[in-house]
Amino acid sequence: MTDNLFRYQLLKKDGQARAGVFSTPHGDLLTPVFAPVGTQATVKAVTPAQLEEIGAQLVLSNTYHLYLRPGADLVSEMGGLHEFMQWHRPMLTDSGGFQVFSLTDMRKIDDDGVTFKSHIDGSTHRFTPEKSIEIQEKLGADIIMAFDECSSPYDREYSEKAMARTHAWAERCLKAKTRPDQALFGIVQGGVFPDLRERSAEFIASLGFPGHAIGGLSVGETKAEMNQMLEVVNAVLPEDKPRYLMGVGSPEDLINGIRRGVDIFDCVLPTRLARHHAAMTPTGRLNLMNQVFARDHNPIVEGCGCYTCQKFTRAYLRHLIVAKEMLAATLISIHNLYTLLEIARQSRQAILEGRFDAYADAFLEQYERTL
Amino acid sequence: MTDNLFRYQLLKKDGQARAGVFSTPHGDLLTPVFAPVGTQATVKAVTPAQLEEIGAQLVLSNTYHLYLRPGADLVSEMGGLHEFMQWHRPMLTDSGGFQVFSLTDMRKIDDDGVTFKSHIDGSTHRFTPEKSIEIQEKLGADIIMAFDECSSPYDREYSEKAMARTHAWAERCLKAKTRPDQALFGIVQGGVFPDLRERSAEFIASLGFPGHAIGGLSVGETKAEMNQMLEVVNAVLPEDKPRYLMGVGSPEDLINGIRRGVDIFDCVLPTRLARHHAAMTPTGRLNLMNQVFARDHNPIVEGCGCYTCQKFTRAYLRHLIVAKEMLAATLISIHNLYTLLEIARQSRQAILEGRFDAYADAFLEQYERTL
Repeated sequence: MTDNLFRYQLLKKDGQARAGVFSTPHGDLLTPVFAPVGTQATVKAVTPAQLEEIGAQLVLSNTYHLYLRPGADLVSEMGGLHEFMQWHRPMLTDSGGFQVFSLTDMRKIDDDGVTFKSHIDGSTHRFTPEKSIEIQEKLGADIIMAFDECSSPYDREYSEKAMARTHAWAERCLKAKTRPDQALFGIVQGGVFPDLRERSAEFIASLGFPGHAIGGLSVGETKAEMNQMLEVVNAVLPEDKPRYLMGVGSPEDLINGIRRGVDIFDCVLPTRLARHHAAMTPTGRLNLMNQVFARDHNPIVEGCGCYTCQKFTRAYLRHLIVAKEMLAATLISIHNLYTLLEIARQSRQAILEGRFDAYADAFLEQYERTL
Repeated sequence: MTDNLFRYQLLKKDGQARAGVFSTPHGDLLTPVFAPVGTQATVKAVTPAQLEEIGAQLVLSNTYHLYLRPGADLVSEMGGLHEFMQWHRPMLTDSGGFQVFSLTDMRKIDDDGVTFKSHIDGSTHRFTPEKSIEIQEKLGADIIMAFDECSSPYDREYSEKAMARTHAWAERCLKAKTRPDQALFGIVQGGVFPDLRERSAEFIASLGFPGHAIGGLSVGETKAEMNQMLEVVNAVLPEDKPRYLMGVGSPEDLINGIRRGVDIFDCVLPTRLARHHAAMTPTGRLNLMNQVFARDHNPIVEGCGCYTCQKFTRAYLRHLIVAKEMLAATLISIHNLYTLLEIARQSRQAILEGRFDAYADAFLEQYERTL
């Protein structure tokens, strides 16, 4: 029933890298795409107008946070998440699972769901697959996620158990879902174990989701292991549906993911780094609080097209940081988000022109030279 | 030598209210005008692009703060304040006097100047009239201020002494000034004493400044006293030069000041209130953290033309506040600044159309009904 609203068109494959279009009720996503994270219905320190200006296509928001504050019913009464936060392009909500499992000492898992305590006031709550879907339907994002369990990546026994739960919960989420204007994505788990990942991808792909996500990566494993898991999983997932690598978004992770067939990324890194004074550049991170920038007339990145780099010097940004001015977080967030959006855009262009490998190699060489 | 660059043209008088144009090297100020305050070379939580969008014409920055951090030499090396903070419309710097005198227990005044300790690191510094001009010339604003002493408003003996110093320092500032592309404004003092205010206005006016400021108001006296002082002073100050009421900027103060012949205002109130969750409206202040706004679909002010009111509900703003999101300060600051800019614009239009009294009466009636 979502056939007309959600359609993925693979425009071009260059090696395993893919350029495509994923249609949603709030517009088309030109993939590969990077999604800024708006945890509490706001991308921290950045207005929706500023997000539009840097060309953001997709924004992610967190079900766990919105469920606790301001509450899914309130968001629904206010017309849903798009209307509430005034983001009228595509949105995605996670299932709440990842955040709930991260509350290590404050949650108890069973086969039916998770009971947990709020990090805000300690009150007790319970998420099940059905509850997660119910909340996400109230929030109203275009793409919603199945309730899954992310294991410790190196614990085989736990990974297998969490994978089995993830599979059972994926079926329950599919059954619970009612809104035709939302696409539910299934999630592949399996830790760092190729055979588990393969089994998980096969099972999840068999359920007929309109898109697939790869969960449980960038949670402590090595880059080599992440790359290997992507290769195993994407060899199994069908080509005619989008693939979303959850919570991953350093510049090199984007390049490595795109190279292995990933279409969608999200990460808090660009905005979190910005609030800690770190600017992303093609050659690594700059800590703008550093004294060496006090009289630096250059922008963060020469030639960068973002508002921050078009207008402001490193010296000014350092002054804002030292003077504890909020504008620092805004300006550096704009730059960092633009950097990742631009990597996704440049990757897409390179794929369409059949030169992604050359683009990726040049990018990684420049990046790694300075690490 | 500033004749060509700084020219005040009185377009229309309506009662004592004035509509005019003050030319500066960075453009014309259409007066009456309200100046947002960018204490540390940034209007807190708002980008220059956002200030332009709401129609800000003039931004004030503080000499005391910039002198301490990042330092006037650094700002000068970076091309001056306009270039440093990327505000290319007119700018004004205060003399540093007001802030230094506010450091009650950390400063010592003599007839030559003030020795004070930095609020940042306790280091010792000295401002004199010559030093204040030297710093302001390095900062490079279009309008700079004479170094003055603001007394306790009700202490006649101190007010007389501070006035005498202010007069002597005004002459020294005039002598010290060298840049032809900056207009130095003289400042009238005299506490709440009509005879002192009159004497001060006569003396300051006699020195031939291209503009005049009224200092030492909104520092504890009543509204009636402030209004009386404005009437006394503006009856003396020449009509062919702009008049600036320093540090004053609640909605009713703007209306009352314009009614008594003031052309320029500045105040931290709109941005400071915004950071404390208070929104300015034509009928008074709203504390947006209040539970009653949790499900309020309305904008802060129905029909307001600012980005915040065009897009966001009170419910969303309250959510941002409760969730401690920085975006709250940005969005409420935009609204509060727009409110004061709009009062100045509407006042100007009303003066040009000869209906300022009716506009002012209606504004104050609506405002006071709810106080």
